[in-house]
Amino acid sequence: MTRRYKFAASHRLHATALSEAENQRIYGKCNNPHGHGHNYEVLVTVAGPVNAATGMIANLSELDPFVTERVVEAFDHRNLNEEVEEFRDVVPTTENLCLEIFRRLKDFPAARVERVRVEETSKNSFEVTADES
Amino acid sequence: MTRRYKFAASHRLHATALSEAENQRIYGKCNNPHGHGHNYEVLVTVAGPVNAATGMIANLSELDPFVTERVVEAFDHRNLNEEVEEFRDVVPTTENLCLEIFRRLKDFPAARVERVRVEETSKNSFEVTADES
Amino acid sequence: MTRRYKFAASHRLHATALSEAENQRIYGKCNNPHGHGHNYEVLVTVAGPVNAATGMIANLSELDPFVTERVVEAFDHRNLNEEVEEFRDVVPTTENLCLEIFRRLKDFPAARVERVRVEETSKNSFEVTADES
Amino acid sequence: MTRRYKFAASHRLHATALSEAENQRIYGKCNNPHGHGHNYEVLVTVAGPVNAATGMIANLSELDPFVTERVVEAFDHRNLNEEVEEFRDVVPTTENLCLEIFRRLKDFPAARVERVRVEETSKNSFEVTADES
Amino acid sequence: MTRRYKFAASHRLHATALSEAENQRIYGKCNNPHGHGHNYEVLVTVAGPVNAATGMIANLSELDPFVTERVVEAFDHRNLNEEVEEFRDVVPTTENLCLEIFRRLKDFPAARVERVRVEETSKNSFEVTADES
Amino acid sequence: MTRRYKFAASHRLHATALSEAENQRIYGKCNNPHGHGHNYEVLVTVAGPVNAATGMIANLSELDPFVTERVVEAFDHRNLNEEVEEFRDVVPTTENLCLEIFRRLKDFPAARVERVRVEETSKNSFEVTADES
Repeated sequence: MTRRYKFAASHRLHATALSEAENQRIYGKCNNPHGHGHNYEVLVTVAGPVNAATGMIANLSELDPFVTERVVEAFDHRNLNEEVEEFRDVVPTTENLCLEIFRRLKDFPAARVERVRVEETSKNSFEVTADES
Repeated sequence: MTRRYKFAASHRLHATALSEAENQRIYGKCNNPHGHGHNYEVLVTVAGPVNAATGMIANLSELDPFVTERVVEAFDHRNLNEEVEEFRDVVPTTENLCLEIFRRLKDFPAARVERVRVEETSKNSFEVTADES
Repeated sequence: MTRRYKFAASHRLHATALSEAENQRIYGKCNNPHGHGHNYEVLVTVAGPVNAATGMIANLSELDPFVTERVVEAFDHRNLNEEVEEFRDVVPTTENLCLEIFRRLKDFPAARVERVRVEETSKNSFEVTADES
Repeated sequence: MTRRYKFAASHRLHATALSEAENQRIYGKCNNPHGHGHNYEVLVTVAGPVNAATGMIANLSELDPFVTERVVEAFDHRNLNEEVEEFRDVVPTTENLCLEIFRRLKDFPAARVERVRVEETSKNSFEVTADES
Repeated sequence: MTRRYKFAASHRLHATALSEAENQRIYGKCNNPHGHGHNYEVLVTVAGPVNAATGMIANLSELDPFVTERVVEAFDHRNLNEEVEEFRDVVPTTENLCLEIFRRLKDFPAARVERVRVEETSKNSFEVTADES
Repeated sequence: MTRRYKFAASHRLHATALSEAENQRIYGKCNNPHGHGHNYEVLVTVAGPVNAATGMIANLSELDPFVTERVVEAFDHRNLNEEVEEFRDVVPTTENLCLEIFRRLKDFPAARVERVRVEETSKNSFEVTADES
């Protein structure tokens, strides 16, 4: 089962370990010091057997508050660099954002979190699966 | 090759083995006795080698009537609980619907049916692959 | 400003003033007595001057609860024929649904409701504007 | 003819003429001091007679650089409050952003700019037409 | 009521009245002598009063065969320049294609054809309304 | 990471090894001698570890010119049968197009090309993964 969630956030791509020139070369306009933003879409896939009684893998009434609390409310209308602890020293690329979301969701109690995909724009998406993490 | 099909149907989520209170708790407004409905989209993936002469895995002129007869005509503009034999005693959750569609399609003669995905809304989808079934 | 809302509902197209044969001829499979359903999307357009202080035509914090209460909660996961008073004697075609939604929204106090569009499927939509109603 | 352009930017909704409490009440989480962001899509509609020789209203090879220079490059990967002159004292709501984009485009020499629509998210859009401005 | 239809076709933009150099300058890679193609989507809007008995503006069982015969079958999987009479001497820009589709549909007997919109790609669309034609 | 690219092209499905009658039977209207066209969308997935310093799998500033040169510029606004060497003797079905695109991209130096998906229309897509090729 795959469920879609959305949030809007801003970020700046800037690696503290790299020089100004390297940051500019690697991240281009994403390195703009004033930041920029995106409407992120997050697709969370949980897998497992279908419960014979309920006909469900997991109840959305459990998954929705879990993802909302751990991800949507934590990131929505935030500046990722300034307001999310994990991105103080880690560049908030969508790769790292995807890994962080997977980390926050992987202990969902009702079913195995199989995959997290983050769509940054209609052209770019990033995906992490349980096997890789 | 993945091909998209669509149908509109209504259903009610209600497990006969459960009490009224449990049904209400588990399915919430999906348990409404008058039913409700969705525009379902079904993505059927067939896999196999590309035929050297035709350049195709399978001809849509074979796949389309197969899926149309077994799935689209059987479910389109139907009430799944009342009009589909398999859902008389099985709750028509989208998980179960996806499994039933896979069962109806898996013996497609011209190529292996690799995956069936059912999109219930733009936010929810369910998928079954050949390995799991 | 146009804002999108969604709900899922079931309906049956059947005009009580017409014979069985006429109903069947006019509505085809939409006349199926067990009903069928759709994911409806409603686009509500409000118009007016942009408030110089707030930079807004109308605040979503006013529009959202207004539309949610009058339309989304009234129709979501409902059978339109059985559970919406106005469709007891009126066929719940999407044309009539669109007119009914416009009627329920037109006295929004904070801005003029200019247009209501209902998308029944990705192929069909219906629209009513303030001038026509 | 309608042509779609895209850019990503961040903004903060905060009216300097209003108190902190009023800002918080009106803009809610959009008032977050660290800002947040969106993928904006801009639909520019130009109208006019179809040129008999070329079969075109206006050549995209003229419209594209015009919009790219005046809008896309000016706003893409920017913080609207900090980096766009016009939003130093004007709240960068999408209403105001839409008006500003219209202002920047309305003297397109090759055809009349009929309408500018800005989609902030898949749920919200704002539109200004030549008659209103 | 707006209904969406689709067809795939190829075309070449080349005005016989213009020189090779002008054709190249105006149409760029669209002037490629071997042609290229698109998945066109056509949105046909019909307007009128809602029939009190049927709750419909016009029955899709009338509109669909009308548009299919006059437009979809005439253009689908065709080369517009070579196989559509009207484009022998008229450049098949999407502007001209839109006008031609409007011409073919405007005498629909059951309701007034208000607007025809042709989407050439997800970025470009063209629209003609009854008032302009 | 999955990145979306687009191009428009025309093609004709016709296998030189088959008779006229067989070509007509197998490809139907896709066998039309004048060709037809599509807006193709190509989704390129690259996989690998996230670089600790940059937070990226691969830099779009490397992937974009690589795909643009090898695929987009080679195919955009082209007739695949006439203008792409590899399709002189191979039918340009989307299966074969997908394989050809994978072949052109698989030696991307900065990360492993995991999957290529080609969307021919909103209903059909074709996919090849590194394991299969």
